[in-house]
Amino acid sequence: MSESIRVFAPATISNLGPGFDILGIAVASLGDTVVARRAPERGVRIQVITGADALPLDPEKNTAAIAAAATLRRAGIEAGVELELHKGLPIGSGLGSSAASAVAAAYATNLLLGSPLRKPELIEPCLEAEAAVAGRHGDNVAPSLLGGLILVRSLDPVDVVRLPIPDGLTLVVVTPDFSLPTREARAVLPREVPLSATVEMAANLGALVAACASGDLGLMARAMTDRIVEPRRADLIPGARAVIEAARHAGALGSSISGAGPSIFAICRSARSGQEAAEAMRRAFAAHGLAATAHLSPADCPGARRV
Amino acid sequence: MSESIRVFAPATISNLGPGFDILGIAVASLGDTVVARRAPERGVRIQVITGADALPLDPEKNTAAIAAAATLRRAGIEAGVELELHKGLPIGSGLGSSAASAVAAAYATNLLLGSPLRKPELIEPCLEAEAAVAGRHGDNVAPSLLGGLILVRSLDPVDVVRLPIPDGLTLVVVTPDFSLPTREARAVLPREVPLSATVEMAANLGALVAACASGDLGLMARAMTDRIVEPRRADLIPGARAVIEAARHAGALGSSISGAGPSIFAICRSARSGQEAAEAMRRAFAAHGLAATAHLSPADCPGARRV
Repeated sequence: MSESIRVFAPATISNLGPGFDILGIAVASLGDTVVARRAPERGVRIQVITGADALPLDPEKNTAAIAAAATLRRAGIEAGVELELHKGLPIGSGLGSSAASAVAAAYATNLLLGSPLRKPELIEPCLEAEAAVAGRHGDNVAPSLLGGLILVRSLDPVDVVRLPIPDGLTLVVVTPDFSLPTREARAVLPREVPLSATVEMAANLGALVAACASGDLGLMARAMTDRIVEPRRADLIPGARAVIEAARHAGALGSSISGAGPSIFAICRSARSGQEAAEAMRRAFAAHGLAATAHLSPADCPGARRV
Repeated sequence: MSESIRVFAPATISNLGPGFDILGIAVASLGDTVVARRAPERGVRIQVITGADALPLDPEKNTAAIAAAATLRRAGIEAGVELELHKGLPIGSGLGSSAASAVAAAYATNLLLGSPLRKPELIEPCLEAEAAVAGRHGDNVAPSLLGGLILVRSLDPVDVVRLPIPDGLTLVVVTPDFSLPTREARAVLPREVPLSATVEMAANLGALVAACASGDLGLMARAMTDRIVEPRRADLIPGARAVIEAARHAGALGSSISGAGPSIFAICRSARSGQEAAEAMRRAFAAHGLAATAHLSPADCPGARRV
């Protein structure tokens, strides 16, 4: 009963411009860690949370516990599991914090049970957890679990597609010292969009997928536009437009809001270009009175793994 | 002054399920032919149209003449051009009839002038012609001109992407003896769509593009769904739903309405599978009282060319 499994699940950038709710990519180093142990009493309990003050220990409200319990149910195993959750990710930053906790817990629980489920089968338990706090969408969960760049074609049934990533690309994430609850960021979404905007989103997403496959970075840059979600959320984040513009001006292929924000990401041709974009983006936030931290990452990063 | 240029431009299947207004593919053998000759008097005239009764000779109303005139303007050349238009395509069938005429005329005119414009530069003159009869969209014009499978990322500016086509695929087009004016087919389109449907269209289009690149035919089949346009247009075409269902039941990877209809297309794994789907689709139309002709084609066909 003393075995413990420690799992790290990475932060993720979702949406990536035209991929609202369906496209996400894993980031290096940033993420959450969960330790899972067998417990004598059935069910899932959270023993301790470090790195965050605001998260509930209540297993019905915490995404790590919800995902672990859903994993047990899906595996058809009645067991007792105790979790430690070590938050490495700020909450409400647009980097898939709740998803990383859910993924780390689901994967650790599955390993603890002897891996009754294959890794992709853990997406559904993690979606249940996401649905409890941020709505049922898979663009953070899938890349945090599987790594790399993932397109979520469908949630019912779950159907995810790994996309190729052109060599050498660097991700930049700049997170301002500013709180934007996911609830508020989702409240500004339109219920309906013009058919022309629908067609435009699909065209840009299709072109982005084509660019990933062919390595055409010019096409990737042209395709990374979004006129449905980004303009509305940019109004909620001081300096967002200036930060995106600064990234592009510094040579980024594309830049937009990461998930629900307030983090802004950029995709750059090289690590050096990423450094330049990161500096420009931090300066642009500073000009709007916000301190910000920048994080660089290769674009092709692994997903959840035992550590 | 006696040189004449004869050009064939193929029919095209557009939309292909989730690619409304942005995705199209060229078809073999079916198409329009234009013969262009120098004429002493400036401007474009149509001498003769064969193969269709209803088309206007008036150069301001005929897409071949409009495209030829726009090609002259774009090339900055004041010349006289006489056109013969030989329609091989039925009008209003959903196979890009107006686009094929425009493409054949633009390409023939450009060749006649000594090719002042590159082939992709002819898209814009052809779009002007399409706009006069069927709305400004490039999903027929681009593949008829360039051949193969083309994603239209943007019209302003023109930005088209050639997509890879998995080996061995066969296209089936079944055209019923039923008239459905493009105007009517466009009138049933919604002005606005729910955000969730927008996301679903983009997800399926992205997955379809990914499937073309990777050759994952199972994914291609799952991605060829459309809940925005197909259901509305299917109501206008007797038996459309049964024909689509018959194609899938016969083993087609996907099936939907070609362009504005009433033709229905299917994409199949092989020529043999295509034969089976074509038979099933014709029988389904017959069961709804409509005679129909079937046309099979390899999926990777050339675009406009001198013949």
